[in-house]
Amino acid sequence: MLLASSTPAGLDTGDTAWLLASTALVLLMTPGLALFYGGMVRSKSVLNMIMMSFVSIAVVTVVWLTVGYTLAFGDDAGWGLIGDLEHLGMAGVTPGSLTGHVPTLLFAAFQLTFAIITAALISGAIADRAKFGAWVLFTAVWTVLVYVPVAHWVFAPGGWITAHLGALDYAGGTVVEVNCGAGGLALALVLGPRLGFGKEAMRPHNLPLVLLGAGLLWFGWFGFNAGSALGANGVAAAVLLNTQAAGCTGLLGWLLVEKKRDGHATTLGAASGAVAGLVAITPSCGSVDLPGALVIGLLAGVVCSYAVSWKLKVGLDDSLDVVGVHFVAGVIGTVLIGVFATATMTGGATGLLHGGGLAQTGRQLVAVLAVAAYAFAVTYGIGKAIDRLMGFRAPADHERTGLDLAAHAETAYDHGVLSHGSALHAPGLPHPSGKATTA
Amino acid sequence: MLLASSTPAGLDTGDTAWLLASTALVLLMTPGLALFYGGMVRSKSVLNMIMMSFVSIAVVTVVWLTVGYTLAFGDDAGWGLIGDLEHLGMAGVTPGSLTGHVPTLLFAAFQLTFAIITAALISGAIADRAKFGAWVLFTAVWTVLVYVPVAHWVFAPGGWITAHLGALDYAGGTVVEVNCGAGGLALALVLGPRLGFGKEAMRPHNLPLVLLGAGLLWFGWFGFNAGSALGANGVAAAVLLNTQAAGCTGLLGWLLVEKKRDGHATTLGAASGAVAGLVAITPSCGSVDLPGALVIGLLAGVVCSYAVSWKLKVGLDDSLDVVGVHFVAGVIGTVLIGVFATATMTGGATGLLHGGGLAQTGRQLVAVLAVAAYAFAVTYGIGKAIDRLMGFRAPADHERTGLDLAAHAETAYDHGVLSHGSALHAPGLPHPSGKATTA
Amino acid sequence: MLLASSTPAGLDTGDTAWLLASTALVLLMTPGLALFYGGMVRSKSVLNMIMMSFVSIAVVTVVWLTVGYTLAFGDDAGWGLIGDLEHLGMAGVTPGSLTGHVPTLLFAAFQLTFAIITAALISGAIADRAKFGAWVLFTAVWTVLVYVPVAHWVFAPGGWITAHLGALDYAGGTVVEVNCGAGGLALALVLGPRLGFGKEAMRPHNLPLVLLGAGLLWFGWFGFNAGSALGANGVAAAVLLNTQAAGCTGLLGWLLVEKKRDGHATTLGAASGAVAGLVAITPSCGSVDLPGALVIGLLAGVVCSYAVSWKLKVGLDDSLDVVGVHFVAGVIGTVLIGVFATATMTGGATGLLHGGGLAQTGRQLVAVLAVAAYAFAVTYGIGKAIDRLMGFRAPADHERTGLDLAAHAETAYDHGVLSHGSALHAPGLPHPSGKATTA
Repeated sequence: MLLASSTPAGLDTGDTAWLLASTALVLLMTPGLALFYGGMVRSKSVLNMIMMSFVSIAVVTVVWLTVGYTLAFGDDAGWGLIGDLEHLGMAGVTPGSLTGHVPTLLFAAFQLTFAIITAALISGAIADRAKFGAWVLFTAVWTVLVYVPVAHWVFAPGGWITAHLGALDYAGGTVVEVNCGAGGLALALVLGPRLGFGKEAMRPHNLPLVLLGAGLLWFGWFGFNAGSALGANGVAAAVLLNTQAAGCTGLLGWLLVEKKRDGHATTLGAASGAVAGLVAITPSCGSVDLPGALVIGLLAGVVCSYAVSWKLKVGLDDSLDVVGVHFVAGVIGTVLIGVFATATMTGGATGLLHGGGLAQTGRQLVAVLAVAAYAFAVTYGIGKAIDRLMGFRAPADHERTGLDLAAHAETAYDHGVLSHGSALHAPGLPHPSGKATTA
Repeated sequence: MLLASSTPAGLDTGDTAWLLASTALVLLMTPGLALFYGGMVRSKSVLNMIMMSFVSIAVVTVVWLTVGYTLAFGDDAGWGLIGDLEHLGMAGVTPGSLTGHVPTLLFAAFQLTFAIITAALISGAIADRAKFGAWVLFTAVWTVLVYVPVAHWVFAPGGWITAHLGALDYAGGTVVEVNCGAGGLALALVLGPRLGFGKEAMRPHNLPLVLLGAGLLWFGWFGFNAGSALGANGVAAAVLLNTQAAGCTGLLGWLLVEKKRDGHATTLGAASGAVAGLVAITPSCGSVDLPGALVIGLLAGVVCSYAVSWKLKVGLDDSLDVVGVHFVAGVIGTVLIGVFATATMTGGATGLLHGGGLAQTGRQLVAVLAVAAYAFAVTYGIGKAIDRLMGFRAPADHERTGLDLAAHAETAYDHGVLSHGSALHAPGLPHPSGKATTA
Repeated sequence: MLLASSTPAGLDTGDTAWLLASTALVLLMTPGLALFYGGMVRSKSVLNMIMMSFVSIAVVTVVWLTVGYTLAFGDDAGWGLIGDLEHLGMAGVTPGSLTGHVPTLLFAAFQLTFAIITAALISGAIADRAKFGAWVLFTAVWTVLVYVPVAHWVFAPGGWITAHLGALDYAGGTVVEVNCGAGGLALALVLGPRLGFGKEAMRPHNLPLVLLGAGLLWFGWFGFNAGSALGANGVAAAVLLNTQAAGCTGLLGWLLVEKKRDGHATTLGAASGAVAGLVAITPSCGSVDLPGALVIGLLAGVVCSYAVSWKLKVGLDDSLDVVGVHFVAGVIGTVLIGVFATATMTGGATGLLHGGGLAQTGRQLVAVLAVAAYAFAVTYGIGKAIDRLMGFRAPADHERTGLDLAAHAETAYDHGVLSHGSALHAPGLPHPSGKATTA
């Protein structure tokens, strides 16, 4: 260990400390998502589900550090559409480079964690039926062709959505939520529904795992939103409190609908409602005050609790509700900035409720439509191309057996022999753990 | 994302960075508690247990942001008993408002996370037998009538316990631990024991989940205690080290008792001992030095390992040891400040061992008794009132079936069909996963 | 709560905030390791596995705060071999003491978390077969005789490896990884293989738990490596990005080998590959640039994926691959500093690729050999001594039954009675949960 120090003039150690912590927090969200998703699928494909998130971490990181960062955050190459190639392979970015008051390398790492989870989120729309190799290829291509341009449009200083259109998106309602939602919808259409979808019950195999995942996501979301302040200041504090508020009213809204509609509140509803509220506040957390945050979260929880049931009616197997939660709540949160934005937070733009007219809402709608249309179309194209190239859908017998055993030669659990050595299964039954694989 | 900045004069970005991180850490403790508790109950009510914690997050947040914060931390309305209503709905608190060197919105968020976990902790005393709706109502009322006043007494600048009595409580030995312990005792009496308590074995259904929860609690506790320094400084460092020390001797103390008394050390004992030590150091972490912390943790581990067996003897179903661990260790830690306080840490008050006489111990005892009596009495009253209003206890058949299926229409696990498609259950047996619920 | 502040001149609150957060992050790694290891063993000894990590936290903390810190970081007592006893029991270190820009108490806590996980890592080499009491004694003795001196050699200002030899190790490739790897090898030889090793399948009983553990380790590793900058600056940022890069190429490298060699990629491979990459970048994260990090991680993933299969060929029961992953990747990462070190990061030392010749590689090799030889020899001696004193290996019947029930009188899971009250097991079979233990 060196006691090395590289603190160029203009760097604020407090701002940097919070962004370091935030980056770690957001990175943890993808393993959290892996468990959130993993608990929701059947026990025969939980490992495949978890793997889709973990491999996204690896693939997107390599893509980001080679070409992604420079295309997203290099100087604008024209019309706010894409960044230039000056920082290919992070060239020219040293430990002394600054973005605002923090090291540019840290800003790049923080932004990387957003790219990772956005790709990983899409996997929820195609649970239990994708070829693993096709998924790996998809995450790389999708990050370059979809995530990176949209990130430039919204997060880069000269991006057209922020700089020219004047829409607001604090922490990724368009870049992350609408993006993964529209992409998930496209990919679910490309792959088609799971065998038995709509006929067999496909219950979550491990709800405590889902709630653990939800807890880790919530925890990480503080880094996601409040870290987007890129500093440890009053705005970061307001954003953090807005985030907490909306997650909570999202949870309550979903449970209230369930209680009234179904007669009981569920654990899965609590987790989904919290996520819906957190999604909706992601774009708006830096533009609205506390009452706005409470209302946005509540609306997201209520609306999404209905939205997720639409998939059964239309026969769309958005397996783990990427569309019903992320797309829908992402749209709600992004558009409602036009209603609830307050100059106290934005420093300028004002929503309908605070006397700003309909202009901002219009801008928000354009942003949402542009990102949704682009993400849907390009994702559909990528999905079809990969399907033609190598087949995107796993063979039917793999799907029936479960991808864990069929594609990864593993099973998630091996409780066949319990602690005291007596076999759990009745004599004559096949051993529940299936054929042995190597430890 | 805006590169917005709101850094009023007097704000320290380093202090703010640590409090932002601490707030996230403490928020994670309640999902951690959900798993800690969830693993300890039987598999038929794990989801209900987890839900009680998660819904506390949501309910307490809404209560806190509307009336709780101002009643706890508004200007004292008289005699150090309660805050005024100036900040109802967080009115008048902007991103530029400061408390010490950190944003007031962040201070409010940090304190919120304490209110959340205190309410959630109580659920451990009434595991497996409470109506969910009654619990939701309870957490709201209890936060307003019990948590908020006690927080004012101890944590607010003019609160009577700190300002007039002169008792010390750094991070919530009274406000959090004694408070939830006395409240849990009252509520356990209101609801009565679980069916079969003392006759049937009610073993933890998933000990790895308990240990995961314990790990997350431990992690979050650094934010809880060292975050209470409200800054990133030498006191925060000393508090963090004291916290670690006491958690460790608590663990060792409990295991030593088990080994000597029962012949073996258990995992549940390790988790419980660590929590006991961490509870005991919570009030005292800012008043004692390292030897003090080591001794306080050890005493807590040893005493609590006996205290938790008293419930069986007196027939009190404090199901997950809220009284035996949180109340008992909370009292130990708060009172022993009178013995171990050192002026190096307190900047004034000195305990018996460091030449301060018995005065401080007396103050600590008064604080503990006042909080315990108040919390017990008011909680008992709230519990009885809710019981009269809507019934607090779940119907006996719900309890027998398990609250997960009976009240939430879910089951925690669905391993009925394992990965390779063979049924786990023997032919002719009822399907282990019960009636199908919707995915 | 006091609004106390202890901010001596020279303390940087931003640096301190990041080190506070990092310390919490690294502490969480050991519970994370407990789950990572616990998921990999059979369900009959998962609690024992978890306990070995948790008790390490407690034992090493007490050892560190009494004698460990001063021997490691007290003033050098001669020849860079060991620290003096000036700070026995942390004497003379107050909340106002500084190390660099951070409180010395915090530096001591941060370093403590490294000592904890190093001891805990060794337990993976002796899974399922060690006496718990012997392990407790081992962790205490090993920390004093092995960890502490090596930490002084490498991490203390006057340590011979850093100050005299001039080898580089940023965050513990020798101190943590080679140390635990060589120690694990020695202890695996002392205890011998598990009953049935190489004959029976010993499959991981819960792979989602393994991946959860891997996620927590990865998260904590940002504190481990970037916290070692002891500040929130550009070097910390570069280190964080290097860490992420190497973890990702480690994961990809391992999966590529699996796919090519076995025809499928596994979840366990993804977790192991990420850990291998993270291990390899631990020493080198502060010396190499991004291309270096990407290559080092990739090499570690590829080489370790082969290394772990050697144990079956040579009959060495390094049960959870402490040698195959931590030793091998630790050596790779430490030695390759000699190849990839760049003056941009080191401020001086330069590797082969950047024109520095073979000198630095030579220094790195000497450091690795010295630490490996010392750790192996002394660990072997400690293991043999404890074996003679009290027996290190659990009785064969305990091992067959499983250590959970036999040594801790617990079982990890109790799903015998599922949510709706019907028994899972077929009539006439023994109850799967074994004899009742107290809740």
